[in-house]
Amino acid sequence: MPLFIGRNREARRAYGFDEVALVPGTVTVNPDEVNITRRLAEGLMLEIPFLASAMDGVVDMKFAGAFGKLGGLGVLNLEGIYTRYENPYPELQRIIEAPNDSVTHQIQEVYREPIKDFLIGQRVTEMKKSGAYTAVSAIPQKAKRYGQIAQEAGADVLVVQSTVTTARHISTLYEPVNLGELCRELDIPVIIGNCVTYHSALELMETGCAALLVGVGPGASCTTRGVLGIGVPQVTATIDCAAARDNYFKRTGKYVSIITDGGMSTGGDICKAFAAGADAVMLGSTFARAREAPGKGYHWGMATPHKNLPRGTRIRVGTTGSLEEILYGPARLDDGTHNLVGALKTSMGSVGAINIEQMQLTELLIAPQIGSEGKIFQKTQRVGMGK
Amino acid sequence: MPLFIGRNREARRAYGFDEVALVPGTVTVNPDEVNITRRLAEGLMLEIPFLASAMDGVVDMKFAGAFGKLGGLGVLNLEGIYTRYENPYPELQRIIEAPNDSVTHQIQEVYREPIKDFLIGQRVTEMKKSGAYTAVSAIPQKAKRYGQIAQEAGADVLVVQSTVTTARHISTLYEPVNLGELCRELDIPVIIGNCVTYHSALELMETGCAALLVGVGPGASCTTRGVLGIGVPQVTATIDCAAARDNYFKRTGKYVSIITDGGMSTGGDICKAFAAGADAVMLGSTFARAREAPGKGYHWGMATPHKNLPRGTRIRVGTTGSLEEILYGPARLDDGTHNLVGALKTSMGSVGAINIEQMQLTELLIAPQIGSEGKIFQKTQRVGMGK
Amino acid sequence: MPLFIGRNREARRAYGFDEVALVPGTVTVNPDEVNITRRLAEGLMLEIPFLASAMDGVVDMKFAGAFGKLGGLGVLNLEGIYTRYENPYPELQRIIEAPNDSVTHQIQEVYREPIKDFLIGQRVTEMKKSGAYTAVSAIPQKAKRYGQIAQEAGADVLVVQSTVTTARHISTLYEPVNLGELCRELDIPVIIGNCVTYHSALELMETGCAALLVGVGPGASCTTRGVLGIGVPQVTATIDCAAARDNYFKRTGKYVSIITDGGMSTGGDICKAFAAGADAVMLGSTFARAREAPGKGYHWGMATPHKNLPRGTRIRVGTTGSLEEILYGPARLDDGTHNLVGALKTSMGSVGAINIEQMQLTELLIAPQIGSEGKIFQKTQRVGMGK
Amino acid sequence: MPLFIGRNREARRAYGFDEVALVPGTVTVNPDEVNITRRLAEGLMLEIPFLASAMDGVVDMKFAGAFGKLGGLGVLNLEGIYTRYENPYPELQRIIEAPNDSVTHQIQEVYREPIKDFLIGQRVTEMKKSGAYTAVSAIPQKAKRYGQIAQEAGADVLVVQSTVTTARHISTLYEPVNLGELCRELDIPVIIGNCVTYHSALELMETGCAALLVGVGPGASCTTRGVLGIGVPQVTATIDCAAARDNYFKRTGKYVSIITDGGMSTGGDICKAFAAGADAVMLGSTFARAREAPGKGYHWGMATPHKNLPRGTRIRVGTTGSLEEILYGPARLDDGTHNLVGALKTSMGSVGAINIEQMQLTELLIAPQIGSEGKIFQKTQRVGMGK
Repeated sequence: MPLFIGRNREARRAYGFDEVALVPGTVTVNPDEVNITRRLAEGLMLEIPFLASAMDGVVDMKFAGAFGKLGGLGVLNLEGIYTRYENPYPELQRIIEAPNDSVTHQIQEVYREPIKDFLIGQRVTEMKKSGAYTAVSAIPQKAKRYGQIAQEAGADVLVVQSTVTTARHISTLYEPVNLGELCRELDIPVIIGNCVTYHSALELMETGCAALLVGVGPGASCTTRGVLGIGVPQVTATIDCAAARDNYFKRTGKYVSIITDGGMSTGGDICKAFAAGADAVMLGSTFARAREAPGKGYHWGMATPHKNLPRGTRIRVGTTGSLEEILYGPARLDDGTHNLVGALKTSMGSVGAINIEQMQLTELLIAPQIGSEGKIFQKTQRVGMGK
Repeated sequence: MPLFIGRNREARRAYGFDEVALVPGTVTVNPDEVNITRRLAEGLMLEIPFLASAMDGVVDMKFAGAFGKLGGLGVLNLEGIYTRYENPYPELQRIIEAPNDSVTHQIQEVYREPIKDFLIGQRVTEMKKSGAYTAVSAIPQKAKRYGQIAQEAGADVLVVQSTVTTARHISTLYEPVNLGELCRELDIPVIIGNCVTYHSALELMETGCAALLVGVGPGASCTTRGVLGIGVPQVTATIDCAAARDNYFKRTGKYVSIITDGGMSTGGDICKAFAAGADAVMLGSTFARAREAPGKGYHWGMATPHKNLPRGTRIRVGTTGSLEEILYGPARLDDGTHNLVGALKTSMGSVGAINIEQMQLTELLIAPQIGSEGKIFQKTQRVGMGK
Repeated sequence: MPLFIGRNREARRAYGFDEVALVPGTVTVNPDEVNITRRLAEGLMLEIPFLASAMDGVVDMKFAGAFGKLGGLGVLNLEGIYTRYENPYPELQRIIEAPNDSVTHQIQEVYREPIKDFLIGQRVTEMKKSGAYTAVSAIPQKAKRYGQIAQEAGADVLVVQSTVTTARHISTLYEPVNLGELCRELDIPVIIGNCVTYHSALELMETGCAALLVGVGPGASCTTRGVLGIGVPQVTATIDCAAARDNYFKRTGKYVSIITDGGMSTGGDICKAFAAGADAVMLGSTFARAREAPGKGYHWGMATPHKNLPRGTRIRVGTTGSLEEILYGPARLDDGTHNLVGALKTSMGSVGAINIEQMQLTELLIAPQIGSEGKIFQKTQRVGMGK
Repeated sequence: MPLFIGRNREARRAYGFDEVALVPGTVTVNPDEVNITRRLAEGLMLEIPFLASAMDGVVDMKFAGAFGKLGGLGVLNLEGIYTRYENPYPELQRIIEAPNDSVTHQIQEVYREPIKDFLIGQRVTEMKKSGAYTAVSAIPQKAKRYGQIAQEAGADVLVVQSTVTTARHISTLYEPVNLGELCRELDIPVIIGNCVTYHSALELMETGCAALLVGVGPGASCTTRGVLGIGVPQVTATIDCAAARDNYFKRTGKYVSIITDGGMSTGGDICKAFAAGADAVMLGSTFARAREAPGKGYHWGMATPHKNLPRGTRIRVGTTGSLEEILYGPARLDDGTHNLVGALKTSMGSVGAINIEQMQLTELLIAPQIGSEGKIFQKTQRVGMGK
């Protein structure tokens, strides 16, 4: 149902988390009995359908272990600080302490240090000690090389990620990455991202990947939409890619999981992502607020270090509790950023979904938060939130 | 008329109070002659169609009496402070005085004290002294037990309330509450809530309840939408549940009242609720601002004490006048929070409705307050409001 | 094209000034050659189609004279301060100097003083000295009596005004005002208001009035929408009432002017009112900013003094220039509140309208100001406006 | 697909930059290989499709040269400070240093000085020394005279610009400018503006102009919409004028370039302008932030000096970097205002456009930025941007 935005020019309306809401069910379910485990790929069963973003302020080796023990999957960025410095923590400290007006520059400085191959293997080995699944990420151009090293060191999953990744890429200056070849040559499952449209999701599924990351431009520390004008709101992006997944499954019998990545800041947003069709969600800033996060309450995007066109910034998110409190409560904040698992289960109970498959079919309503109820006390309310 | 929010996925647009406005009538009526009395249930005739929410900062025994004398119905929460402590006032004071950053924790502490059965009867007895109707509330799981005690002590109405209540509930761990049985076994009328959709309202009406509370997530001290993603804006929710009422009445001859609960902060919002089809409205924060409210200008939601997933917060609403001023004026504020009865009658006069039935048929307009008139002086205006 | 706002319930979308914009013409006209004179009623030709609201902070006897000499029509409120006190200026001063938290109360006090009949005649006599048209206003219940006195004293127009005025009114306690009789019995033209819908405009035209005031709830110092929930955005209200005017004219040959009253704060808004079909506009706060306004930079609504349900407040609008600057420039502000006549003529030139009739046919676009261009510098811009 | 905004009155919905977003492509392209050169007119090939507005705080002779060397086209206003004063810099300083409350008056004073014909030729000669294309602007009434002088002095392009320019203009007091004659009589290409609609664009193309400026009311230092009510959001305006261009080209074989002028504040907005159909973009405030801009971080509109009806103001935009950084990076800000060329190329790569023609066909989505993702950290994020 496209609308005209000018003479002979139509456009679809796309929706974000703030514009939709879930509708309670006619039947409700005991939240303690809903099932949220999810098989992300062959041999990769997550107790809770949560991934932690491959961002240096969020996931280091210890965080990945702690997060894994709690049931989720933390991804280590193979092109971040941890593979550039044997002791990365003084560098993290430098970023954390940089004054606002020079932080972009300082981040660029820190990331000028070259990546060391030996550190890739070493980091994977360190992560494996926790017993949790080991997930690492690289950009498409480096995915083959770093992926091989990581696989040999025992990594369980490779995430191949750039702002926009497509199965087809045009260049006369270099050989475009063959993602199908990459997936075939590696033994471990590959998660590819990011994409946001039905057709590019379908083409990426043909590469043989295990899952797709959905989201271009929505994250809290990401400024892609302002800089490039590109961005598809996450509810519509998730619905479209989930439709690709369902059609691909119908045609081939292969189920490629959809992971909504970015743009969610509360339990409510997460619930909406699942209702839009997600199999799992990937969060950055939410986990950056955990006491275990190496960023100590600071968070910056993967495109921030870009030399010529930084698209992201360091933001102060604060430290609000332990990772366990953020995932399982007890919630010490009532703004929807603590006890995310409890929120998801309670929400599923209220809409009457006994598992993620049913949650994916929940009725969504268009109901903008702007101009919504409770206006007079709004300010007071925020103060009262204990922030 | 659903809209596409993604590939193969449709959603309805739902509306809140700030998005609609009433249209003046072609005929007007003398406001002093409009009739706003309303029969809420068999033997329960309200002079004014207002209920005060079962929240501890709003309704204690004295407040219920004062509110009843003024024509409304104040509901006491049987699972709140008043049935946990013989002298609840020091505990209220503790919550009121708690600093912002520990208030959620303090509330949880206060509500850890167990409920005493003997206090249930005692509180009902105290309330009855005022001569007003006595209304008490409990969650579904406790409704049978506490309802029986309250009924024996002489309560006139039982409100059975949880965030989302449905006629059907799935659990293998416990026996779901049979709401129909509950209504049949009690002699006093039962009000059930909350619900927001046509179908769940219809199913709840089959239980034999006298009235339904409509509203999930809209209240000022409620953060359900942020935490769970669930919420239906009140205008659409009220219209839908009122449609269920009308169809149920046509089919069975039984009229189940619709009570819009939460999300209204001004006389204007209240008028819109009736125009959307409400038989009565239930207000929390509005009455928390009365001098008679035990919260002394503070207000917190029923889900705030939740140990693992608090959905609500303590908000400071301030004390702005007496209950009589809030209901009948003279208004000392011009922002629509005083003289609610006068506002409703004047609005009914302006739209030409001589009673609530006619008010329920008033034309509504979609007219977002956002981007509305008077922008340049907006700031000054607020200052001038004497807040 | 109504939209569904709930089950079986449709509503029209209505539009306000901030949501529309004028489209430049394919032909443009020299602004110095556009004609904005307008015949408001038999023998009442305005050089400029502007009326000043019957508000005590805006129009006193001197202001009406000055405004008339500049080509417009200032209306004196016969139920305001000027007919209650022989020397009203100390009372004005009391309101102006009242602290924010007691201003509503002080206004109520000042207006408690009874109206003196002899002052009505005296004020009209004073106004007539300027040589300009003399316009006065009263509420429907008092219109006959005060209108007769004013007419005898030589008034040229009577404005009969209340929040919502309809041709039909229901009461068993008093005899409703017969507006048709009123218009027939008076020799001077009668302007009636306020109304906002097609059908009530049509019925009011049948009374024989000369013009209608359009606008319920939009003014800067008016809180009708918040208090009563009633309000129709001015663009749609003006279009609808103008449609009634055109149909009534087609049927009867009588042209009843449409005066958009309230909600306009800039020249841009005024231009939009004419494009929506207005024959003239009535402004309050805009003229309250003139050095000649008796409110000395303060402004309050006609419903503010209401004892039980004040719907309005005193707002500080500031004094920004002379009445001549506000009407004809040179503009010392660039925010659209100075040189309103120049703005109207320039706008008409740009859309290619040589007179008000053509301006009424200008293409309007739906183009919300919210989310509009120039965001990054927005703040700075406001600072730079010299306010 | 017009909507009803009132009885019998339809209006189109128009869209601005904040309401749309680009959709990533199914194919992506190496950003280093996209081609953004653009032929603006016969013999006028731009390396980068960027023009700098003819505003005195942005373009002086030196700026034009520097901007030209970097591949763009800077336009000098022939009716600004530079042709009124032999040494314009003390006057610029006076405007820059004026206090907020008198700045409009001071600007009017500075621009009271008459234009000197000899300075027109002299300024063109100065500009030509840089070797870059020399572009100058005049209002329609002066275009013939000043255009001739400038052409003789060697100017390469004449921009004829007023708020709204149409091929047809009505006046009985003076002879309307014949734009067709003007274009025929001059040897250099003529760019005309501004226009925003399909039909007026078509009529202007008939004059024989080389390009059109699109935009009425959107600029950061422009208050046309507030003052006159006129304004068409830039995405729709660009789409409509581009449709005129394409139809005119199909019919005549002549390609008249469309230059989106104003309203863009970030790289993202620029990318959207091209996706809407622009051949080039003209920016004011963005370049006013360059160290080379004569306004030293201040910026004011061309209509600001207007004696009677100033429509614009001086705004403080600050100085954020060199012109080279703003155009080519490295970006020292991550808010999309640095490295605009890099942003455009990266965006084109992500949507799979190898040149501007393909970029003009990019899918646009309706996706309001209001209510978008990342809300909780919004405030912090802005702080973190280093502004």
